[in-house]
Amino acid sequence: MSPQKQVLIIGGVAGGMSCATRLRRLDETAKITVIERGPYVSYANCGIPYALGGVVDGEGKLHVQTVDKMKRWFNIDARTNMELTSIQRAERKAKIRDRSTGLEFFVPYDKLVLALGAEAFVPPIQGADAEHVFPLQTIPNLQEIQATIAEKGCRRAAVIGGGFIGLEAAENLSRLGLEVTIFEFDQHVFPLVDPEIGQVVDAELRKNGVNLRLNARVTKIGGPSESHSGLVFAQGQDPVPADLVIMAVGIRARTAIAKEAGLAVGKAGVSVNEFMQTSDPDIYAVGDMVETLNLVTGAPMQTALAGPANRQGRLVADHISGKEVKYRGNLGASVCQVFGKTVGIVGLSTRNLDRLGIKHEYVTVHPPHHAGWYPGASPVTIKVAFEVPSGKLLGAQVIGNEGVDKRIDVLATAMRAGMTIEDLEHLELAYAPPYGAAKDAINMAGFVGGNVVRGDVKLVHTVDFVRGARKLEDFQVIDVRGPEEYGKGHLKGAKNIPLVSLRERVGEMEKGVPTLVHCKSGYRSYVGYRILAQNGVDVYNLDGGFKSVLDGGYITIQES
Amino acid sequence: MSPQKQVLIIGGVAGGMSCATRLRRLDETAKITVIERGPYVSYANCGIPYALGGVVDGEGKLHVQTVDKMKRWFNIDARTNMELTSIQRAERKAKIRDRSTGLEFFVPYDKLVLALGAEAFVPPIQGADAEHVFPLQTIPNLQEIQATIAEKGCRRAAVIGGGFIGLEAAENLSRLGLEVTIFEFDQHVFPLVDPEIGQVVDAELRKNGVNLRLNARVTKIGGPSESHSGLVFAQGQDPVPADLVIMAVGIRARTAIAKEAGLAVGKAGVSVNEFMQTSDPDIYAVGDMVETLNLVTGAPMQTALAGPANRQGRLVADHISGKEVKYRGNLGASVCQVFGKTVGIVGLSTRNLDRLGIKHEYVTVHPPHHAGWYPGASPVTIKVAFEVPSGKLLGAQVIGNEGVDKRIDVLATAMRAGMTIEDLEHLELAYAPPYGAAKDAINMAGFVGGNVVRGDVKLVHTVDFVRGARKLEDFQVIDVRGPEEYGKGHLKGAKNIPLVSLRERVGEMEKGVPTLVHCKSGYRSYVGYRILAQNGVDVYNLDGGFKSVLDGGYITIQES
Repeated sequence: MSPQKQVLIIGGVAGGMSCATRLRRLDETAKITVIERGPYVSYANCGIPYALGGVVDGEGKLHVQTVDKMKRWFNIDARTNMELTSIQRAERKAKIRDRSTGLEFFVPYDKLVLALGAEAFVPPIQGADAEHVFPLQTIPNLQEIQATIAEKGCRRAAVIGGGFIGLEAAENLSRLGLEVTIFEFDQHVFPLVDPEIGQVVDAELRKNGVNLRLNARVTKIGGPSESHSGLVFAQGQDPVPADLVIMAVGIRARTAIAKEAGLAVGKAGVSVNEFMQTSDPDIYAVGDMVETLNLVTGAPMQTALAGPANRQGRLVADHISGKEVKYRGNLGASVCQVFGKTVGIVGLSTRNLDRLGIKHEYVTVHPPHHAGWYPGASPVTIKVAFEVPSGKLLGAQVIGNEGVDKRIDVLATAMRAGMTIEDLEHLELAYAPPYGAAKDAINMAGFVGGNVVRGDVKLVHTVDFVRGARKLEDFQVIDVRGPEEYGKGHLKGAKNIPLVSLRERVGEMEKGVPTLVHCKSGYRSYVGYRILAQNGVDVYNLDGGFKSVLDGGYITIQES
Repeated sequence: MSPQKQVLIIGGVAGGMSCATRLRRLDETAKITVIERGPYVSYANCGIPYALGGVVDGEGKLHVQTVDKMKRWFNIDARTNMELTSIQRAERKAKIRDRSTGLEFFVPYDKLVLALGAEAFVPPIQGADAEHVFPLQTIPNLQEIQATIAEKGCRRAAVIGGGFIGLEAAENLSRLGLEVTIFEFDQHVFPLVDPEIGQVVDAELRKNGVNLRLNARVTKIGGPSESHSGLVFAQGQDPVPADLVIMAVGIRARTAIAKEAGLAVGKAGVSVNEFMQTSDPDIYAVGDMVETLNLVTGAPMQTALAGPANRQGRLVADHISGKEVKYRGNLGASVCQVFGKTVGIVGLSTRNLDRLGIKHEYVTVHPPHHAGWYPGASPVTIKVAFEVPSGKLLGAQVIGNEGVDKRIDVLATAMRAGMTIEDLEHLELAYAPPYGAAKDAINMAGFVGGNVVRGDVKLVHTVDFVRGARKLEDFQVIDVRGPEEYGKGHLKGAKNIPLVSLRERVGEMEKGVPTLVHCKSGYRSYVGYRILAQNGVDVYNLDGGFKSVLDGGYITIQES
């Protein structure tokens, strides 16, 4: 019998635990030890904000596995409240510190798996270490925040950072009755997405009583007074009193020990190959601490998401057991609930594509999430970016009240398959009136994008006006909506020619002037576009129509 | 100027109208005429059952376009209450009959587009022509049924056929307070899916007060009595009184006129090429009346679905305008709501794969539709069939209360992309607690299927016992659930060894006897399987676990 293989896994949550349990299923004989820094293994950290708000009833529900169950089901030796302090690669042993006693000891390994995760980043601002300031990352964080709220009777909370955790924290603190202010450095919350999408999230937060401080660089968290625990100061803005501050500005991969051990570390995390091996083939790393290939940029990138972490853990178990299954990289598919809205993205936003110099075109549609005549239909905004002329999908953003997660997952699957915008036209999706439409919202995006790729329509985007890339005055603007819709507000200088009259009024177009045509969401104006284009007019359709203008707040609107 | 192209389109609903409007967008000059047999153009026929039940408030909502709007928006000449009676191909003209006057006249064409749809099939049974028997296909059908219910005060309805229309009709008639009985020829309703899926639909119908007559060959609809309009007789079953009968046994492509004109017609509908051209290149056909390539079988097949019909119409407009875009075939992605359940399928059921002699393996999983610890989680059953050893996806069925339509659409996209069961393991789907799980239900199906393809697990299916392909007595059956679960009911002869005790009790396995291990849904037994297999036991996992047994009602269960 071969000597027992010793596998030491540091980190007992998503990636580490997926690795440990799969490894046991593949190998009954290995000695598997899991070291966890915190007091619990394998808990659902994604549920922490919801446990805070009471949506998930009690943190107990978040304990997916226990140390005892790990032993009894999987014969895995899991140790909590212990942390890795260094790796002696030459001797293949890891130094572990028992956090309750402070004692240190060595654990030998044949294979070492690092699943250290990432640290909540605390920016170097005065007062960030005050006792009413917390990250919201672990169950102990949750318990401290709950204790603070209960003991101090907090009424006002500040959330620094408007990403996933910040948004979930804000909604759940609101649910508890606190008055919440989000401080976001960017011009809108959820900065993964483009402004006209993010601003819809902004509006939803405000509608639900959350205060927003945008373009806010927090400089200081001040001391307590009689009426509050401290003031939050942001550059050039009035300070906001808060009894509780959640620090959710982002995370940093825990790479220090790997670096110290001489492992290769990239900009965003520990470097790994397709089998999740670090530069030392006996040491693997997974999850929030590593950087893996982003399939859109082709560059390594941190993807701090539970799904990828779990899959990476599985692949490490495979590789340790002699199965070579490659990690296939990330698209960053993600989704977030914000009160009544759901917002999601896969791939890159057009803003991030621009930043990286990746040339692209994009289309925006606002079809109903299911058949318009079936009760409860509500618009879902889909913005898809693609390469021209290949049509290869580069990114997709979706926001709406219903059916958003479905469209993101379909788009994520399409992107994973290397599909093009024209492929979306041909996708056969399941239709029944409560769920979709004969021409699903995804098909609609494909139709519009396909028309662009084939040169059947030229688009102009509202953002081009905001950025000054185009000027509204350079166009004759034709609003093809009905007179009532026009009367409620329209683009400055727009002429109202309802679609039904357009054919007979083609002669009214000024010769030689580019014509911008639009309606509410882009369909009627597309019909109008085709009439004008075939009559020799140099015409452009306004992408996403007046709804995109209203969502983005971009161009001068004239109220009638 | 070239002479005006004359395009004549017969059929003014899904496929015909999509063709007409797209053609106008591509070509301002063509003369486009649409002939519609019924009184309305471009109405949402998928909504008719919902208008019957009052879910959609008034049939008015179903009118997507009107004759007037077709003229004003699209300059399309649409004529209702007119029907095609013959095609004179040599002279390129079609004979049209005005149904209100009975007058016939010829319309010349350069291109003819047939979108005649399909006929509700009326089986040759006595009484099928009685005045209280209706199909539910058109707005006039709807109006007649509504009038009958109102005038006669119907209390009891029979629905013949348990497919899409039958199920939607039954639910909506129930909603109106009628006592409904469905007569289904097959052993369960919704025969597109496999028995253990269809039986869950059966149970949902019964739970909601709908009576089922399964394996029912309806032989006669009898005459009226004082208490009802007629008795519905099925072979070997007691007759059921009904004041209203909905005939929903299926449809037949309307091919008679095409046949008469000498166009090639296949088994299931008019034959067309990838551009939807019939054997006469100047005549196209689309929608329910044609047969197109089924991507799983590789054979032509009727696909009577709105989505494909619409896309086919678009492609015809493209081709007439000189754009060659090929139709890419069908997977038959479909979904249906039945009270609180949603059921969907893409590709073929395993029963249909068997019938066609297509070799396959399949896996069944029942994971929660979103994170189990997030409130409202409910199981979603996913059954995926694939080729071995390639893993190529052949079909997927999904049933559950929530999140079903999403999974079907993701699977439809994956199948369209030619993905394998192993690709489902790697799919990166968007996760937030209200929408999914870090390992999504789709990934779970991929994990199990991947294990099968790689030989890491051998499955046994409950259906094999029912069919007699395997005998339960040939196995030692190990139930690895807890004693409480076991106590509530278990497989006959099963020995209870909870997973936590399995390692120490491996010695209890009888040597040389194949061992069948199971739990509630397959995960714990998979862990147990790996323990036993690595200890030299010849072991099989029961696919889908005890839940699949209960869903299918297949194997002898011992109540404790």
